[in-house]
Amino acid sequence: MKRIMLVVAYEGTAYCGWQLQPNGNTIEAELNTHLSQLFGEKIQVIGASRTDAGVHALGNVAVFDTHGRMPGEKVSYALNQRLPKDIVVQKSMEVAADFHPRRCESIKTYEYRILNREFPLPMYRDTACFTYEKLDVSAMREACGFFLGEHDFKAFCSVKTQAATTVRTIYGLTVEEKEPWVRIQVKGNGFLYNMVRIIAGTLMEVGRHRYAPQDVEKILESKEREMAGPTAPACGLTLLSIEYPEGLLNRPT
Amino acid sequence: MKRIMLVVAYEGTAYCGWQLQPNGNTIEAELNTHLSQLFGEKIQVIGASRTDAGVHALGNVAVFDTHGRMPGEKVSYALNQRLPKDIVVQKSMEVAADFHPRRCESIKTYEYRILNREFPLPMYRDTACFTYEKLDVSAMREACGFFLGEHDFKAFCSVKTQAATTVRTIYGLTVEEKEPWVRIQVKGNGFLYNMVRIIAGTLMEVGRHRYAPQDVEKILESKEREMAGPTAPACGLTLLSIEYPEGLLNRPT
Repeated sequence: MKRIMLVVAYEGTAYCGWQLQPNGNTIEAELNTHLSQLFGEKIQVIGASRTDAGVHALGNVAVFDTHGRMPGEKVSYALNQRLPKDIVVQKSMEVAADFHPRRCESIKTYEYRILNREFPLPMYRDTACFTYEKLDVSAMREACGFFLGEHDFKAFCSVKTQAATTVRTIYGLTVEEKEPWVRIQVKGNGFLYNMVRIIAGTLMEVGRHRYAPQDVEKILESKEREMAGPTAPACGLTLLSIEYPEGLLNRPT
Repeated sequence: MKRIMLVVAYEGTAYCGWQLQPNGNTIEAELNTHLSQLFGEKIQVIGASRTDAGVHALGNVAVFDTHGRMPGEKVSYALNQRLPKDIVVQKSMEVAADFHPRRCESIKTYEYRILNREFPLPMYRDTACFTYEKLDVSAMREACGFFLGEHDFKAFCSVKTQAATTVRTIYGLTVEEKEPWVRIQVKGNGFLYNMVRIIAGTLMEVGRHRYAPQDVEKILESKEREMAGPTAPACGLTLLSIEYPEGLLNRPT
C-alpha cells in the first residue's frame, strides 16, 4: 500500500464543484472513476480544497492509497490519458502514508480575475469575471490592508458556513492591474465558505466607489454578512497553489 | 438605407467557421439571425475573413445594410443582448454605403498561440495549441525572415485552394516567447486557405529541429504543399485585427 499525491488543474465550468454529489458530476468523481479503472481497484481521493461549482484550479491537491505498482511520478501521464480534457494532473508523487492534505498546515493562494473593459471577450466568458465599470485599483489596494492578518471573517463568509470558528489569517492580499485585467491574489492558511468570493465582491465594490476602503474595517467588526459586498461569480476564481511545509512531502515513505 | 460595420470577437470552438453552412451553425448565421430579429427585416452580413471551424477572432469585420433607425454605434449594445456568449460585438459604426470589407486594401493580423510545457492547462484546451516538446524559439525566429515580403505561397496553402493566384505579401512575422507561451504573429494583405496554420505548423517543426530555418526558402521554391509542415490545429489561431486604410471608414456616409 502506498499513498500518492496529485496536483490537479481543472476548468470547473462543467462541474458541480470538487466534492462528490448525489446528482451531478464533480472533479472528485472523475478522479475516483479513472483512478479506479487505471489501478483495477476501488480508489477514493481525499482533496485539499473542495472548490465550488464553476471555480477553477491550477494546483489543487489530492491523495489516494493504492496497492498498484505504478511509480508515483508516472501516474500523472497514465491518468491524463483517461481524464476529460478539462481536468489535467500536473504532477504526481508518492508521499508518506500519513500525509493528509487537509489535516496539516498549508498556505493556499487564490486568484480572482476580472476583465475590466467596455465589452466582454468571448474566450474568457467562463474563466474571468466581467465588469464594464472602470475599477479604481488604488482604492482597492488601500482596502487590502484591512484584511491582512488574523481576523474574525464572519462577515465575509456564507451564512451557510458550518466552521467551528470563523477566525482566519490572511498572509497576503494584492490587486494587480494590467489593462484590461485586474487580478486579486490572496494567500491564507484556510478560507471559509465563499470567503474569497465575498472579499473579491467587496473589493470590486470599493473599486466602484460604493464602499470606501476603510469601510472594510467596519464590516469586519460588524460580523454581519449583509454588511459586506456580494459574492463575486465563481467563474473568476482560480485556486493557484497549495504549499505544504518544507519536508512534509518528502519524508521517507 | 445605411451600411453598418461590426467588429466581431468570437470563440470559434462551437461553430463550423464563419461562413453559412447547410448543416451546422456558423458565426455568420448567428449574426444574420439576431440582426434580422433586432431590426425586423431580413439582414445578411458580409464578412471580411471567413475563418475556419474552431478558429477564433478578436476583430473580424462584417457589414450589413438596414432601413432601421438605430444609430450605428448603438447596434453593438443591442446585438450583444441577443447573441450567444461566445460571440461579442466589440464596436459598431455607420460606414459609407460602398464600403466592402473584402474588396479593398486591408492588413490582417493573426496570432497563433502555443502552450509549451510538460502538461496542458485545461482552461486553454480550446484556445491554444499544446505541445510538450520544448520549442527552439531562436530557430523559429530565424525562419521567419524567409517568409517576409512577396512570395508564391503555393506550398503553404491547402491543396483545396481555389484562389486565382497564390502570390501574397507578408508584412510582418514574429515569434514571441513568454514561458510557457510561444506566440506567432503574422501580418499580411491576405492569406490563402490554411496559410497561417501551415506557416505555424512549419515554424513549430523548425522549433523542434525537424526543419532547419533555411529550409523555408526551399519549401517556398518547391511550390509543393507536401514539402511544408503540417496544418497546425485550428484552436491555436485567432484573427486579431483587420486594418483598413485611413479615411476609408470615416468618409461621409
